[in-house]
Amino acid sequence: MKNYMDELLKKINSKTAKVGIIGLGYVGLPLALEFSLKGFKTIGFDIDSKKIPLLNSGKSYIKHISEEKVLQAVQSKNFSATTDFSKLTEVDVIIICVPTPLTEHREPDMTYIVDTAKMIQKYLRRGQLITLESTTYPGTTDEVLLPLFESPASDNEKYVVGKDFFLAFSPEREDPNNSNYTTSTIPKVVGGITPNCLEVALALYNQVIIKTVPVSSAKAAEATKLLENIYRSVNIALVNELKMVFDRMGIDVWEVIEAAKTKPFGFNAFYPGPGLGGHCIPIDPFYLTWKAREYDVNTKFIELAGEINTFQPYYVVNRLVEILNSHKKSIKDARILILGIAYKKNIDDLRESPSLKLIELLISKNALVDYSDPYIVQLPVTRKYNFNMQSVELTKENLKSYDSVVLSTDHDSFDYKFILENSNLIVDTRNKFNSLGFNSPKISKA
Amino acid sequence: MKNYMDELLKKINSKTAKVGIIGLGYVGLPLALEFSLKGFKTIGFDIDSKKIPLLNSGKSYIKHISEEKVLQAVQSKNFSATTDFSKLTEVDVIIICVPTPLTEHREPDMTYIVDTAKMIQKYLRRGQLITLESTTYPGTTDEVLLPLFESPASDNEKYVVGKDFFLAFSPEREDPNNSNYTTSTIPKVVGGITPNCLEVALALYNQVIIKTVPVSSAKAAEATKLLENIYRSVNIALVNELKMVFDRMGIDVWEVIEAAKTKPFGFNAFYPGPGLGGHCIPIDPFYLTWKAREYDVNTKFIELAGEINTFQPYYVVNRLVEILNSHKKSIKDARILILGIAYKKNIDDLRESPSLKLIELLISKNALVDYSDPYIVQLPVTRKYNFNMQSVELTKENLKSYDSVVLSTDHDSFDYKFILENSNLIVDTRNKFNSLGFNSPKISKA
Repeated sequence: MKNYMDELLKKINSKTAKVGIIGLGYVGLPLALEFSLKGFKTIGFDIDSKKIPLLNSGKSYIKHISEEKVLQAVQSKNFSATTDFSKLTEVDVIIICVPTPLTEHREPDMTYIVDTAKMIQKYLRRGQLITLESTTYPGTTDEVLLPLFESPASDNEKYVVGKDFFLAFSPEREDPNNSNYTTSTIPKVVGGITPNCLEVALALYNQVIIKTVPVSSAKAAEATKLLENIYRSVNIALVNELKMVFDRMGIDVWEVIEAAKTKPFGFNAFYPGPGLGGHCIPIDPFYLTWKAREYDVNTKFIELAGEINTFQPYYVVNRLVEILNSHKKSIKDARILILGIAYKKNIDDLRESPSLKLIELLISKNALVDYSDPYIVQLPVTRKYNFNMQSVELTKENLKSYDSVVLSTDHDSFDYKFILENSNLIVDTRNKFNSLGFNSPKISKA
Repeated sequence: MKNYMDELLKKINSKTAKVGIIGLGYVGLPLALEFSLKGFKTIGFDIDSKKIPLLNSGKSYIKHISEEKVLQAVQSKNFSATTDFSKLTEVDVIIICVPTPLTEHREPDMTYIVDTAKMIQKYLRRGQLITLESTTYPGTTDEVLLPLFESPASDNEKYVVGKDFFLAFSPEREDPNNSNYTTSTIPKVVGGITPNCLEVALALYNQVIIKTVPVSSAKAAEATKLLENIYRSVNIALVNELKMVFDRMGIDVWEVIEAAKTKPFGFNAFYPGPGLGGHCIPIDPFYLTWKAREYDVNTKFIELAGEINTFQPYYVVNRLVEILNSHKKSIKDARILILGIAYKKNIDDLRESPSLKLIELLISKNALVDYSDPYIVQLPVTRKYNFNMQSVELTKENLKSYDSVVLSTDHDSFDYKFILENSNLIVDTRNKFNSLGFNSPKISKA
C-alpha cells in the first residue's frame, strides 16, 4: 500500500512539492510569492480573470506588495497564475486564502469557502494536503471541508483523512504595511484534523515561515485567530466608548491614553477613531457570535464592541453637525471634505472603511461631500457603496471652499500644516493635528 | 508678600521639606520608605493604632515590603509613624494614600478621602502641597478636596490654590510583588489644579521617582489611572467570557491564548480565572461608571466586565457541582478544599479575593469547606466575610479526605505533583496542572 504521507513529506522537504494557492489577494499573493521565491513551483488560482494577466506579466495590483517581488517570481518560472481550476490536480498542496465576509445581517458569508471547497472536491486526488487560511468560525475545517474531501467527486472511493489526504487550518496573520513583520517572519499557528495532517502541514509551513506553532486541533487554530481579532475589536471599542464618556467630562481621551502608556507593564494602548475598517476586525468576531448561538451562548463583548464601533461614524457626524451649528451653519448644503478613504493610513485598501460610511451619512443629510486620498484616486464600486467620486486635489482654493474638512484616515503624506492653514474648520478623528503640535481654534476632535 | 511656591520648591530641592504620608498601606508605606531613604524627614500617619508601634520598632506588616527597609528607615531617624494628625502642621507636603472601596451597591465609598481631607482642612497652613494618590473618579481633586482647602479651618482667610497652597493628583501604580518594577522605578503621572501646583508636585515626585509624566489637569490624571484598570478589568472579563464560550465548543481557552500570544504585534495575553480580586481591578472601574451617570452616559464595557467577572465564582461552583455529579456525588456534604485564598499568587493580600466568594457559595450549598494557603494561616474578618477558618496543612491524609480540591490561587510554593498524587479530584481555575505538564483524568478546568 502506498504511503501518501511519506511521499508528500519527501516532496515538501526536497522542495519538489508543487504548491497551489487559491485566492490571490492580500493573503494569498504574498504567500504565493514566498513559496515561489523559496524554490517551490507555485500556481496561483483566482476567479478574478483581470488579475491573472497582470500577475503573469510581473505586475502587482496591491500597493504594499512590491512589483519587483512579483516580477522576480514570474521570471524564476516558479510562479504562474491561472483561472483554470482543473490544474488543481497538478499540485501537491492546496492553500485556501479566500475572503470570509459578512452578509448584510452580520452572518458569516461562507460562499467563497464552500465554492472553493467544492471545486477542490471535484479535482481532489490522493496524497494532497489542503490547508485553510481564511478566518472563520471554530469548526469550519471539520464540519464544512472534511465531509466534502472525504467524498471526492473525482473518485468513487471514500478518502480517509490523515492517510489519503491531509487537512489543516492555519490562520493568516497578514498586517499590510507593517514594517517590522512580513508573511515569512510572523509565527504561524497550525492545527490539523489528525496528527498526520498536523505533521504534514507543519513541514510545509516550516519551509517558508520563521516559526510554526502547532495546536491540538483545527478548531483551536480557528479560535486562535478569532481571539486575536476579538481582542482588537473589543479594545478599540473600549477606547471609543471612553472617548465619548471623557468628552462629556471635558477630558481629552488622547492625553489620557498617552499618559497610561507610560505604565511599563499591564497596559497596551489602543486609539479611538471614526469606526472600524479593514477586512478583519469589523467582521471576524461575528463569526464566533454566529457559531456560539448553536451552543446556546452569547458573546456579549463582541456584540457590545460591534454596537460601539458601528456607532462611531454616527458620532463623528453628530460632532460635525454640532461644530457647524456653533458656527451658525447647517449640515444641509454644507461642503465637507473627507480626508483619507483607506481603512488605515498609508495603504490603498478601502474595505469596510468608515470613511465610506461617513460619506453615506453626510449625503443622507444633504451635505455636499468630496474626499481626498492620494492612495485612492477614484472610488471603486464596493459590495455596499457606489459613489461616483474622484479624489480632490488639496490646493489652497479647494481647501478654502469647504465649510469643514474631516480627517478620517491620517496618511503620512498629507501636508497637515498646509491643510490647517487653508481650511475653515477641521474635525480631527485621529488627534493628528494636536499630536503634531498644531493647536488652533479651527481644530475640533471627534 | 511671601512667595510660598519658591520657598516650598527650595525645601523640596534641598531635601529639607518634611513629608507627611496619610495611610500606611500597600501604597503609602513603600512611598514613605522611599522618601525617608532618599533623605526626607517623613512622618507616616494612620488611623490604625496597631500599625504604629510595629513600624516604629522597624517591623513590616506587609510580606512583600522588606523589614530591612523599614528598619533602615527607622534607624536613619528620617521615618516615624503616628496616629496624631495634629502633626500635619509640621509637614510641608501631604500625600494622601487612603483606600477608595465600593459600598455594597457598587458606588464609590468616599469616606476615607473625605475624612482625611477634613482632617487636613483642620490643620492646613500656607505653603503646603497636598497630593492625592487614591484611585478615584475624575473630578475628585477639583470637586471634593479643593473647596475644603480653600476654606481652611485653621485660618479665617480664604486660601488661593496655586499661591497659598498647592494641590495635585498623582495616581499610585503599585503592583505588589512585581519583580521588575517597584515604587521608585514606575513612571508617575501627575496633574495639578493649576500650573504652579503641577510644578511643585513634579518637583516633589522627581526626588524619588525615576520619571514623572505631567498631564494637563488633575482630572486627566484621575482618568489615566481608571483607564489602566478598566483596560485590565475588561480584558480579563473578555477571556472569562471566551473561556465559557470555548468550553461549550470543546476548545481549551488556555491553549488558544498561548497560541495567540505568538503573534508578535497587536496582541496582549490575559488569562481567565475564578473571578477578579485585589483592591483595584474589581473596584476602580465603577468609580467612572458612577461619575458618568452625572453626565447622562453609560459605561457599558465596565458594566459588562463587572457582570462577567462577578459571575466567575458562580461558574466555578457550577462546574464543581457538575464534576461531582458526574462522579455520583452531591455538593451537599461534599468535602471541598480551596487552594489559595490570596487574590493573586505569592502574596498575602486577600482583599476582594474570589476564593472568599467561593467559600461563601459552597457553604450556602452545604458543602464542607476548608482552605489551604501558606500566606494566610487564619482567615481574618473582612468587610464582607467572617469565616472562622484556619489554613489546612497539605498532608497526604488531609488531601485524600476531600472529595475535590479547587485550585483558586496558584501560589508557586504549592507542591503540585504531591497535590495531584494525593487528591481525589482537582478543579483547576488557573490551568496550573496542565501548564506544568501534568495530565490526569482527575483534573478538570473551570
